[in-house]
Amino acid sequence: MANSSQRLVLHSYWRSSSSYRVRIALALKQVPHELVTVNLLSNEQKSEAYMKAMNPMGNVPCLVVDDEPFIESVAIIELLEDLYPEPALYPKSPKERAHVRALCEIINAGTQPFQNLSVLGRLESDDARKAWASSFIARGLGAFETLLAQRDHAGPFCCGDTISAADVFLVPQVMGAVRFGVDLQPMPRIRRANEAVLALPRIQAARPESQPDALKA
Amino acid sequence: MANSSQRLVLHSYWRSSSSYRVRIALALKQVPHELVTVNLLSNEQKSEAYMKAMNPMGNVPCLVVDDEPFIESVAIIELLEDLYPEPALYPKSPKERAHVRALCEIINAGTQPFQNLSVLGRLESDDARKAWASSFIARGLGAFETLLAQRDHAGPFCCGDTISAADVFLVPQVMGAVRFGVDLQPMPRIRRANEAVLALPRIQAARPESQPDALKA
Repeated sequence: MANSSQRLVLHSYWRSSSSYRVRIALALKQVPHELVTVNLLSNEQKSEAYMKAMNPMGNVPCLVVDDEPFIESVAIIELLEDLYPEPALYPKSPKERAHVRALCEIINAGTQPFQNLSVLGRLESDDARKAWASSFIARGLGAFETLLAQRDHAGPFCCGDTISAADVFLVPQVMGAVRFGVDLQPMPRIRRANEAVLALPRIQAARPESQPDALKA
Repeated sequence: MANSSQRLVLHSYWRSSSSYRVRIALALKQVPHELVTVNLLSNEQKSEAYMKAMNPMGNVPCLVVDDEPFIESVAIIELLEDLYPEPALYPKSPKERAHVRALCEIINAGTQPFQNLSVLGRLESDDARKAWASSFIARGLGAFETLLAQRDHAGPFCCGDTISAADVFLVPQVMGAVRFGVDLQPMPRIRRANEAVLALPRIQAARPESQPDALKA
């Protein structure tokens, strides 16, 4: 179904974990695409033009395929799987696929929403923001680690020796965990999978610090 | 792939919108299953036994298929689609499927997490809880309505004359909107789809008020 004449444009912000997920998936599948940076610090994602043409939720990422915008990282990554099946990020078995999707959702719906800038902005202080975000991240990644332990794959990735969508969602969330000071020591399987993904040459260009809009410290 | 000898047990709470989604999907596909009620008001979902055997995130729903627990409503409903393909809740076209999945995620990750009891419990007053939940619901359903308007299906359902997963996620979220006093007047397509689903004879048994654990007012 993949068509080399398709034109893909990813609207992304370097530090957005949802954008990072899509960048990793594109990199693993080696899909040629253009990049448009959206500056969340100056609220470009809330501009009338962006919300009307790209994403009425006013967030990133948005992947435009042949002038048609697609939003929500889960939907975008499943679309990439359909359009560019290799390498597969989801297992073929329905039950195994359901377990991978559950891991993705623990991050996507159960963890990341609570560290989102627009949510943290509603809290009254930096201390409150850090306590709020770190408690939700510790809960989500704690459950994620428990599920990995229950299934007890040999690793190094979440579901064995092959990278999957679970890893694609995990790595940007680990970045959030580090940012908010969550202790990853009790999560050996998460640390192992994160390190295995970050060691892949193919994903280096997808990392936040490799993005053209990355702020230099 | 469906196997009539499969034994399905749904762990559910009557007023949980994520449980309600799975009940609607099971009802539409007419999948025989047993029901186990989990009382969120007495924190049964946080019990050690439940978290260990069913769901380390400590929430509902959990669907047990032949003694194997599956969590996260998105993953469960996609699994049901794989195991019981008819009636289909996702379009066959990858791009149309991506749009349906995006609508599901606007609810699942972009809206519902912020009305969750465990989140609202962190806020200091009933007024704060109502303002918080209603603002997130208005934003999410507003974007949902905008996407429906952009695609301009004739209805009555979200994506035309066939019910889809987008409707399955929408109906429980409309229940949340009503509960938190969100004005649905500017959202005619959402109201139309919600009414069309609620009129289906098949889903009556899935409604919160039909559940054995429903509290009578």
